[in-house]
Amino acid sequence: MNKIQQLKAYLTESDVDAAFVTNPDNVFYASGFKSDPHERLLGVMVFKDAEPFLICPQMEIPDAKSAGWNGDIVGHVDTEDAMQVLHRTAAERNGNVRRIAIEKSHMTVDRFEALNRLFGNPEFVGLDEKINAMRVIKDEAELQILREAAELADYAIEIGAKTLREGITEIEVMTEIELALKKRGVTHMSFDTTVLSGPKAASPHGKTGDRKIQKGDLVLFDLGVVHKGYCSDITRTLAFGEPNEEQKAVYDIVLRAELAAVNAVKPGITAAELDQASRQVIEDAGYGEYFTHRLGHGLGISVHEFPSLHGSNQMALEAGMVFTIEPGVYVPGKVGVRIEDDVAVTENGVEVLTKFPKELQIISN
Amino acid sequence: MNKIQQLKAYLTESDVDAAFVTNPDNVFYASGFKSDPHERLLGVMVFKDAEPFLICPQMEIPDAKSAGWNGDIVGHVDTEDAMQVLHRTAAERNGNVRRIAIEKSHMTVDRFEALNRLFGNPEFVGLDEKINAMRVIKDEAELQILREAAELADYAIEIGAKTLREGITEIEVMTEIELALKKRGVTHMSFDTTVLSGPKAASPHGKTGDRKIQKGDLVLFDLGVVHKGYCSDITRTLAFGEPNEEQKAVYDIVLRAELAAVNAVKPGITAAELDQASRQVIEDAGYGEYFTHRLGHGLGISVHEFPSLHGSNQMALEAGMVFTIEPGVYVPGKVGVRIEDDVAVTENGVEVLTKFPKELQIISN
Repeated sequence: MNKIQQLKAYLTESDVDAAFVTNPDNVFYASGFKSDPHERLLGVMVFKDAEPFLICPQMEIPDAKSAGWNGDIVGHVDTEDAMQVLHRTAAERNGNVRRIAIEKSHMTVDRFEALNRLFGNPEFVGLDEKINAMRVIKDEAELQILREAAELADYAIEIGAKTLREGITEIEVMTEIELALKKRGVTHMSFDTTVLSGPKAASPHGKTGDRKIQKGDLVLFDLGVVHKGYCSDITRTLAFGEPNEEQKAVYDIVLRAELAAVNAVKPGITAAELDQASRQVIEDAGYGEYFTHRLGHGLGISVHEFPSLHGSNQMALEAGMVFTIEPGVYVPGKVGVRIEDDVAVTENGVEVLTKFPKELQIISN
Repeated sequence: MNKIQQLKAYLTESDVDAAFVTNPDNVFYASGFKSDPHERLLGVMVFKDAEPFLICPQMEIPDAKSAGWNGDIVGHVDTEDAMQVLHRTAAERNGNVRRIAIEKSHMTVDRFEALNRLFGNPEFVGLDEKINAMRVIKDEAELQILREAAELADYAIEIGAKTLREGITEIEVMTEIELALKKRGVTHMSFDTTVLSGPKAASPHGKTGDRKIQKGDLVLFDLGVVHKGYCSDITRTLAFGEPNEEQKAVYDIVLRAELAAVNAVKPGITAAELDQASRQVIEDAGYGEYFTHRLGHGLGISVHEFPSLHGSNQMALEAGMVFTIEPGVYVPGKVGVRIEDDVAVTENGVEVLTKFPKELQIISN
């Protein structure tokens, strides 16, 4: 209940009567219970002056208990209005909810309107900033899980490298990778495993398909696993067969850009400065127009979380933050390279969690 | 652009200046472009008196075009405020957006507040009901896709039945099923494939794990595929080896309950009546307390969509509606059975899309 205590302290400091947490990732963070409720209501209500409770579909109560939540649980069934159940329970514990904190980046307008109606037009306070500030600094237990998640991502790239052969399709390679991970106990990937070959690697949002991989292709792998509720996210671009001069040149630029950012990570540097460290290398090499996305994103319970590492984010990094560094160069129809690591900010610099080699690997299976 | 024309007609009828569609499933429905934008802005803005546009991350523009959207596209990059880009573009087309329709069940409070600020406190109108009413009636092209999706779900159960053997784990069975589907071109399941064996089948929300399947188990499969953007969702419970009397009795009750609902489907009957048709059979058999969830849910682009088939939904069914019928009985720690079909309401009755046999299959691999 450590996170609940932190939320209660925040409510006291800010003189807010209650916080209603409904983003499933935040519910997991606060309660230890991970569930995707679809359209049904799942949330944790924390009070300044009363005991918290978890609200979830009736049939998930046993799972919530076995996940370790030992506070109160209120179930609801499909035939009742879950928001009314919430209000009734809240009213029983703390008659006077006048200021209520909500995740404005997650709560939907209809639930917002229901809260407004049921609680009699309370004052709403944004909760995202507080939860982001809590989640962005990983404690040692979280870092250890993220290291393990990154190690599984490294293993996945290893399997991908071993699986490459003339004529195998992207989907077949993807399937082999996921099968190998399942054997190591991985039940969920953190997003759709991406294997892009040849000209397809030059599409930063391309989809794994049935293209047959050929000698001379660069093959881009972008994948990650969910491990104990936390995500990893790695990209490696491998050469299948001998690469040509342009492929080697682009790879070298992206690698230097990636290392420039990794080596610049330390407490105090801003996200924008880090983005610029990488971007400058690519711009100086004349490929600036082909690096079309931000440098990276926070990583933890969500695969994309706070903070966003882009050129206008002036947030200074702090020890305990974990994020991706993933510059890329995409020359449409020709060559695409991205290299992505998961890194943690330490007291003195950086810990790189993903460890698969970054020098261009030439695969000759 | 057929769906866009329907939305424009609705705006004219209701005297609403613009509709802003951001639920990714609704964006797909309206534009043909399916994408998961994560925290980034993706939407279609449709005007009463101007041409619509799609707004998406810059790097997704090529994908949106190749998905067949041939209206205007406005891209945004991570360093700009996407809601400002939206407002600027809207203002250029139609200076006077005073009434705006939004999906209140999807739009987040922070985007709602941004619209309020940028458009100068417009009047907001709920759009969910209209889009639900459009999506709930499937046209012949959609029905055909749903039939194909259901056929792939049938095939998955077939593979599951063939894969059962003494000592194989639930995860291994799941992997074999998904592998076989990938070979038939399925890239996404509509939700996590569920294989539950023995006492685990008695948990309506249990998770596929490493339990070894044994002779005498009932094995519950709940799965579906995404096919051309539409979902299927099937449940079958098979007996691995000879079932005991209690297993057979519970199976028989659930099967009769399922058939009671399926056979009652026709235009005009209400969702509540359908739920009751099934529930009555289970209650009469003395197992009412063990049927702990609604009868079913709408099915289409989303695996759970409008309408919800539960005991207090008085909505009358109409031809073209597609939903699941999935009664279950779960005696904790002992026996669990669920049988689920995807059905379409026809002019005269029902078309059952999923066709895997429902008589208790005894597998003796």
